[in-house]
Amino acid sequence: MAGSDCIFCKIIAREIPGYVVDEDDSIIVFMSLENHPMIVPKAHIPDIFSLSVDLASQIMTRAIRISAATKAATAADGIYITQTNGRAAGQDVFHYHMHIYPKWLDSRKPETSEKARHVMMATIRDELKRSQRS
Amino acid sequence: MAGSDCIFCKIIAREIPGYVVDEDDSIIVFMSLENHPMIVPKAHIPDIFSLSVDLASQIMTRAIRISAATKAATAADGIYITQTNGRAAGQDVFHYHMHIYPKWLDSRKPETSEKARHVMMATIRDELKRSQRS
Repeated sequence: MAGSDCIFCKIIAREIPGYVVDEDDSIIVFMSLENHPMIVPKAHIPDIFSLSVDLASQIMTRAIRISAATKAATAADGIYITQTNGRAAGQDVFHYHMHIYPKWLDSRKPETSEKARHVMMATIRDELKRSQRS
Repeated sequence: MAGSDCIFCKIIAREIPGYVVDEDDSIIVFMSLENHPMIVPKAHIPDIFSLSVDLASQIMTRAIRISAATKAATAADGIYITQTNGRAAGQDVFHYHMHIYPKWLDSRKPETSEKARHVMMATIRDELKRSQRS
């Protein structure tokens, strides 16, 4: 059930371009405008209250892998994870998404140019491939 | 492997008092000092990088249930979820914990007195029991 005006559904359907890091039949991982990965179910599920147990497990399993790859790929000192449910919690896109933020001790933030997002996507992808081989 | 100076391990072992909302063999849920529930594995696992797939699934399954119960019990408008990995990400207790924050449109915060924490714990517990019956 793709929301006709849901920007994440449009990225999933390749109707608009996205910086896709990883995907399978149920889950997609793409870069946010702030240049960090987000884990997103392909089905248009608005929030945690509507997640199935199976999909929740898949998201969290993916979160382990994406967190480790993001930390390694960006030489981050830590990983901060957030997930918003409802406007009161700061949710802006009403399609479930888990943010995986790389964090550094010097508090710097990723650049957010198109080029920087492409580089970050490619670097995390390479790290995922490398870690799957080892 | 309980860390001898880990405050969460001490709560889990009942060496110091905690406001426990829910638990099973692997997971415990207790109130933070800020008066919101945290989902915590009983094993002393420092961060997401060390989580097993099985435990990750259990945590996320529990997160669905605790989020719904917290929202209902507190008449919150939304739920904000965070989880820190490493000092650079703001981690202060090095035992994995997922924060489940109730959020209201008027931006109020829960009271943090002992009494308020006891009431919040009891209210969420009651809601969990109620939802399991229905």
